[in-house]
Amino acid sequence: MTADLLIRGGRPGGGPVRDLLVRDGRIAAIGTDLDAPAGTPVETLAGELVLPGLVDAHTHLDKTLWGMPWYENTAGPTLLNKISYERRMRREWEIDAARQSARQIELSLAQGTTHILTHVDIDTENGLAGLEGVLAAREDWKDLVDIQVAAFPQSGLMSRPGTLELMREAMAMGCDWVGGLDPYAIDRDPKGHLDAVFGLAEAFGRPVDIHLHEPEEMGALTLSLIFERVRALGMKGRVTISHAFCLGSERAHIVGPLLDELSELDIAVITTGPSGWTAPSVRQLRQAGIRVGAGNDGVRDTWKHYGDADMLDRAMFIGLRNRLCRDEEVAAAFDICTYGGAEIMRCADYGVTVGSAADLFVVEASGIAEAVARRPVRKLVTKRGQIVARDGECVRRAP
Amino acid sequence: MTADLLIRGGRPGGGPVRDLLVRDGRIAAIGTDLDAPAGTPVETLAGELVLPGLVDAHTHLDKTLWGMPWYENTAGPTLLNKISYERRMRREWEIDAARQSARQIELSLAQGTTHILTHVDIDTENGLAGLEGVLAAREDWKDLVDIQVAAFPQSGLMSRPGTLELMREAMAMGCDWVGGLDPYAIDRDPKGHLDAVFGLAEAFGRPVDIHLHEPEEMGALTLSLIFERVRALGMKGRVTISHAFCLGSERAHIVGPLLDELSELDIAVITTGPSGWTAPSVRQLRQAGIRVGAGNDGVRDTWKHYGDADMLDRAMFIGLRNRLCRDEEVAAAFDICTYGGAEIMRCADYGVTVGSAADLFVVEASGIAEAVARRPVRKLVTKRGQIVARDGECVRRAP
Repeated sequence: MTADLLIRGGRPGGGPVRDLLVRDGRIAAIGTDLDAPAGTPVETLAGELVLPGLVDAHTHLDKTLWGMPWYENTAGPTLLNKISYERRMRREWEIDAARQSARQIELSLAQGTTHILTHVDIDTENGLAGLEGVLAAREDWKDLVDIQVAAFPQSGLMSRPGTLELMREAMAMGCDWVGGLDPYAIDRDPKGHLDAVFGLAEAFGRPVDIHLHEPEEMGALTLSLIFERVRALGMKGRVTISHAFCLGSERAHIVGPLLDELSELDIAVITTGPSGWTAPSVRQLRQAGIRVGAGNDGVRDTWKHYGDADMLDRAMFIGLRNRLCRDEEVAAAFDICTYGGAEIMRCADYGVTVGSAADLFVVEASGIAEAVARRPVRKLVTKRGQIVARDGECVRRAP
Repeated sequence: MTADLLIRGGRPGGGPVRDLLVRDGRIAAIGTDLDAPAGTPVETLAGELVLPGLVDAHTHLDKTLWGMPWYENTAGPTLLNKISYERRMRREWEIDAARQSARQIELSLAQGTTHILTHVDIDTENGLAGLEGVLAAREDWKDLVDIQVAAFPQSGLMSRPGTLELMREAMAMGCDWVGGLDPYAIDRDPKGHLDAVFGLAEAFGRPVDIHLHEPEEMGALTLSLIFERVRALGMKGRVTISHAFCLGSERAHIVGPLLDELSELDIAVITTGPSGWTAPSVRQLRQAGIRVGAGNDGVRDTWKHYGDADMLDRAMFIGLRNRLCRDEEVAAAFDICTYGGAEIMRCADYGVTVGSAADLFVVEASGIAEAVARRPVRKLVTKRGQIVARDGECVRRAP
């Protein structure tokens, strides 16, 4: 009987120094002075942390300009400006979804991300080309990273006739999630939008993830329409709200009842820890028992130049946004960027315990708070026990 | 006649490729195919940007834990919790101000910072030891970096008898600025606090920089007390407000009149682009003609683990906080982290023009927006034409 890998002398989960043996892609044992069959590859550490792979639970692989020549951003300030600017630039700048997805995947792997949930634009101008590219990249990299795909009507669903049919095709092509976007503020037809999104979810038996930037009362009302549908369709535990800016309202009478209902319906929230927008308090969400994950959102795209796909950066951004200063609080930000996202993505066997999939990364740090604060180079990244990155470099190159 | 340095083939200020000749610490010429006297050191670039040195106009050199063993942060959540926690830990953890200042200076230099304005704690528990340490470090590093020091009553001025006398001693020891802090919210005596601060400013002929975290109406009222004193003492152009959270109020009727008066009295604002607090809009400030600079504030200290003293990171944080997305907007964030701070510090001859002091840094990027988004390693940093860092490493090591 062979084994895949023996990692000696690391600190699994940030605990005491232990050896960690991987067999058949899973953690087979954690202990001291573990033996491995002859021929097992061995990685010897000096007390580095061996942590669960980072989970980027909200990004847009098809949008990144990573590796392309620098483009001047001249988009207008509103969401609608940015959406139409991107739709146009996608063709003018030849943003090839397969190539760009591969580039961001390589970057993510190099930084310890082992699971990605990506939203891919479905619209009547670019059709399903983006999805085809993302699905091709997913297939191509499937041994190195787990990717879930949401069909995402970025340009509107009801407001752009023909989009719903494309969304249906997208789901049939293998999307894991039905995406939605600002049913009122962007699509201008909340009832129509949500009926369509939840209709697809029912038809394909898939969960829902809705981008909700709508602020204050508007967002609160849209959430109440979502709650209605979750109840009516029995979709408890199968809906996620991304961004959820309205939960960042300063007004407790708006936020309190929403948190109660999110908790009751087991609706998850994904945040980027945004700096320039109201944002849900991750402390409040977790206290209310709401599942919370995090994502990088767009990485150096037509929306903004910032971002480099590092989920440890993201943990820092969440920490700064939520004033997480004590070590235990910083560790909570890390938890959101790992276990939180994995729970939302329903990743089977995620973690650093015997029996878990060996999706791990290694950093030199005294503990998790230091790993987030310093964000050191990832010494080693494994996917099901196979080494996919070393010293900040992915073992495979994107085109 | 000798010259200090010839930088060939860079892009001064982000413009076209030019040579740049330094003589007697100043930029003597910018042109094509410049000649230099035999023996002049030559640095040959390949079109990299040659930019004005970064200006960290608000930091706390005496507070950083950089290079010390990791300490668990267990401080409580309020400002007062953090202030008393720090005062205690400063001794328990032996945070030596001279050593720690040198460490942050080295780090700053490696990242292209050529000017620093640091606030040093003056309190009845630690006395003037912090100031002595910072002044020693300043003297020690004076050939490599320009440092201005503010005497800062972090623990309160009126509320801690004996502090005012220490502040007076601190000014006599060579502080450049009189610092202040939340006259009402921390010191609980706004009239007493401001009379004391402005009294010191008058007595020593020094400008004032007040940390103002007070929100909304409280901050607005404190600002109005400051305006009174600026008028009465004729201190137009000699006062700076750091943080100024009240200017980030959502309520236009609070912010508008404050901006008008700040502009009229030529009072500057320094921001960190904070993520977890209301913050002034740099767009509004600049439109109102108010001088705006930026600083890193504390770098990995007892307040929070985050931060690494990089002012290009700071430009990114300001960009994210203020939703600066277009290239020209990102360049404005850079301007705040360079020219803005230099103007507040009244740095003589700052810039990348003939006659300016040769305080420069070099990065590989297509333009300023890319430099901020990517924050590449600083290839070269010069202080008055002397090379003080190369490839992200300072030429000198701190203890």
